[in-house]
Amino acid sequence: MSDDLLAAFWRYEGALMANDLETLDRLFAPGPDTLRGDAAGILRGHDAISAFRKGRGGAPKREIVSVDVREIDADAAMVVAVTAPITGGRGQQTQLWRRIDGEWVVSVAHVSLPAPAVNSTVWRIVGTPLVAGADTPELASQTVAVKDLFDVAGFAVGGGVPAYLAESTPAARNAVAVQNLLDTGASVTGIARTDEFAYSVAGKNPHYGTPPNGAVPGAIPGGSSSGPASAVSLGQASIGLGTDTGGSLRVPASYQGLWGLRTTHGAVSSEGLLPLSPSFDTVGWLTREAWTMRAAATASLDLAKQVLPPTRRYAVAPGLNAQAAPGVRAAFDAAIGTLDRAELLPDLAEVELGDADELFEIFRSVQAAEAWATHGDWIEAHPGALGDDIAARFAVASRITEHEEAEARVALAAARIAIERALDGRILLLPSASSIAPSTTADAATIEQTRGSTLRLTCVAGITGRPALSVPALTVDGAPVGLCVVGPRFGDIGVITTGAKFHAALAG
Amino acid sequence: MSDDLLAAFWRYEGALMANDLETLDRLFAPGPDTLRGDAAGILRGHDAISAFRKGRGGAPKREIVSVDVREIDADAAMVVAVTAPITGGRGQQTQLWRRIDGEWVVSVAHVSLPAPAVNSTVWRIVGTPLVAGADTPELASQTVAVKDLFDVAGFAVGGGVPAYLAESTPAARNAVAVQNLLDTGASVTGIARTDEFAYSVAGKNPHYGTPPNGAVPGAIPGGSSSGPASAVSLGQASIGLGTDTGGSLRVPASYQGLWGLRTTHGAVSSEGLLPLSPSFDTVGWLTREAWTMRAAATASLDLAKQVLPPTRRYAVAPGLNAQAAPGVRAAFDAAIGTLDRAELLPDLAEVELGDADELFEIFRSVQAAEAWATHGDWIEAHPGALGDDIAARFAVASRITEHEEAEARVALAAARIAIERALDGRILLLPSASSIAPSTTADAATIEQTRGSTLRLTCVAGITGRPALSVPALTVDGAPVGLCVVGPRFGDIGVITTGAKFHAALAG
Repeated sequence: MSDDLLAAFWRYEGALMANDLETLDRLFAPGPDTLRGDAAGILRGHDAISAFRKGRGGAPKREIVSVDVREIDADAAMVVAVTAPITGGRGQQTQLWRRIDGEWVVSVAHVSLPAPAVNSTVWRIVGTPLVAGADTPELASQTVAVKDLFDVAGFAVGGGVPAYLAESTPAARNAVAVQNLLDTGASVTGIARTDEFAYSVAGKNPHYGTPPNGAVPGAIPGGSSSGPASAVSLGQASIGLGTDTGGSLRVPASYQGLWGLRTTHGAVSSEGLLPLSPSFDTVGWLTREAWTMRAAATASLDLAKQVLPPTRRYAVAPGLNAQAAPGVRAAFDAAIGTLDRAELLPDLAEVELGDADELFEIFRSVQAAEAWATHGDWIEAHPGALGDDIAARFAVASRITEHEEAEARVALAAARIAIERALDGRILLLPSASSIAPSTTADAATIEQTRGSTLRLTCVAGITGRPALSVPALTVDGAPVGLCVVGPRFGDIGVITTGAKFHAALAG
Repeated sequence: MSDDLLAAFWRYEGALMANDLETLDRLFAPGPDTLRGDAAGILRGHDAISAFRKGRGGAPKREIVSVDVREIDADAAMVVAVTAPITGGRGQQTQLWRRIDGEWVVSVAHVSLPAPAVNSTVWRIVGTPLVAGADTPELASQTVAVKDLFDVAGFAVGGGVPAYLAESTPAARNAVAVQNLLDTGASVTGIARTDEFAYSVAGKNPHYGTPPNGAVPGAIPGGSSSGPASAVSLGQASIGLGTDTGGSLRVPASYQGLWGLRTTHGAVSSEGLLPLSPSFDTVGWLTREAWTMRAAATASLDLAKQVLPPTRRYAVAPGLNAQAAPGVRAAFDAAIGTLDRAELLPDLAEVELGDADELFEIFRSVQAAEAWATHGDWIEAHPGALGDDIAARFAVASRITEHEEAEARVALAAARIAIERALDGRILLLPSASSIAPSTTADAATIEQTRGSTLRLTCVAGITGRPALSVPALTVDGAPVGLCVVGPRFGDIGVITTGAKFHAALAG
């Protein structure tokens, strides 16, 4: 048996090195039970594994260092190989081979590759730490991934754009939001990726690649605070320091099952932050646990300005929720039902916040006009510096006339008043995103459609300047979606308290 | 069957979280065929796995995200679990369970944990890149791990000592040896660990931990260029830039199966380098391949001063080789025999270089006196800043009197003349280290004994100022040992040519 098996093993190895997909497909067991796992997650079924192989364009070249065979019975054996990629390091490949219809095939595989020095899709620079925190207990042992929009003393800001980074000079001092965390004992692990100039909620950077979604293998991470979110999700930092203009903290939090807080507009200083759209730009955090979020917020907010105790009046907006996919709506409605039955929503109202398309258009126009005012000169001076998607978005922004902008600002002020009147001081509950994280292989139209629906949900916080916390409380098709707890203004600490209470009730 | 099996799986999980070693031992199949692999390598046999568990003090706390069971036959099944460490990220655990004497036990296991942001035993800081190289082709795509003794513009030098780093200020410009590599297109990936003030050949830093040996699981990496060596071995950089005073490039190269070149004393500028013992300090590189070494050397050496073509006269020193362990001597002698039969050693002589203990004592005395002259003031001003081992070594150094130093310098000059007379222009061949890499759990006496024997071999290059290349050509008990090609002075490029020729002959 061993000779046959080893021949199949080496045939597989040869096919892998040659990227001979047909042979590889034949040497993996057919059917839905076949498994293949690696650092990105587990693929289940022959077809999923085959599709993965087609997509990757060949395995890393390697040599086999050792092969251990353990026979199980006449038709089953384990083969454990140590691999040596030609780029250095060692890997391991553990396979269950089974003889089916006389042919040896792999039915379970576990593949480990050597780790790179750093995951460059997630990080720009990493230290051990990069910046040490003060010797105080509040956030001691917490590690921060700083979105590449904030000044870190001694380092340049890159904004997710290599040409911008190349011209950027080291910051003289830390951004206020960075310093706040350092002052309470957290250390900065490193500077993490962002979508280009933070003008996206997808997390796909054409220059540095797409950070992995730590919760959903093969899905986009969400952006624009993509690097901090993935760093936290992957366990490479405990706090992601990011920004949220249109959803850039809430969306990656929702996609990766994290806590994500957009703070009240103006509640945390934007000093030392590369802006996008100052009317909407806010600072905030991503964490794996509610208490870490609370600690980061407490370290950074002016508590004297906070509205406490938290509001205990709630609202949902069914009209707005229609933007969400049916599965998300169902999960959201079920969660609201659970919270209501637990008497955690004592004064729940259904509210109408206005036409979602109109709200989005108002938000988008002002955001775009400000984004162009912020970056237009630089972009015009650097043709080709941006990837196609974000370049096109800025091109649209560049065509907004002064008149259109002025009209949008009037409409924005009116919308703010109308929404606050409808909410009447209530906390608004809604899904953090319109869907679970789309696949990295989703086409541009799908990503764009998802973005549009999601921004129609997220823009309410932008328009009102309210804080918004994405709570990792919903699950749709095995993937996380956030339950968003919105406002009131300067109720940041309050929404964390509320969100933690909801999370406990929904988990229990 | 599945119920029994899953009960055993969860019993195992409970025991793992409780670090209940007895239950874990019982749930792993007895005998030498049991396998357990992780990123550190494969353990073979129940006893080795049990010893590993005893040594690690508990597994990282985690939750189980998913469990896939694949039955093989009535008494065998695979269990594939996705794990979620409480510190974030996802792992995978693939197990072959077998029913032996009615009890389910694990007979093969493959464990993957999420990668940290950076391996802090190897690196102090990492960028993508940290410093970009010039746009020239020679070393394009090569990545450099810089030992934390060299100036990198904008970053402080730490010398492997946290208290020293804390007082260090960012360098204004790159060390010459760093700049040489950047100028020819290599980029700097990061700053890598060193033993404290480079005063060791073990690679165990008490502050930052022991970098993994990429070739021998569980063994020390060798030092003091430990970080650059492990970075290259692990595939996290392609060139390690280090220093060698008493063996600090050759020993890690030998222990990890790398090419390691100590250059001719004075051939590469030490400008921008934190010194240890200037009479012996040299700059050099660690690589996985001979051509990379040749490219790094060509980029950095003044070729006008190089002695070319390489000497084709050789010597071995059996008296000196007696320092090496029997297995190393046997492998070395066998290699010399092979090279001789291949007519690659046309004028091989056996030479007597003097008493090994005396040579070592001369070297050690001058090295120690200079090390104290370099760092003594700082060390006296910072009690407790160094770990016990290196503190003790410096304490010995501090007691060398001026008279003893003067005598040692006279003896050094005489030894240099005597050795060169004995070698008569020949290249000296000897083992790079006295043994394979000792285990990380070896006691201090073993490490010290190994160090003494190794330094008796390596000090010949120190005393003569000759270049010395460790060629990854010998294997003892499955672990690498280097074949060292020593001199003549300014024959650096020549020894690479010679070493590459030998390597090819010994591999063929």
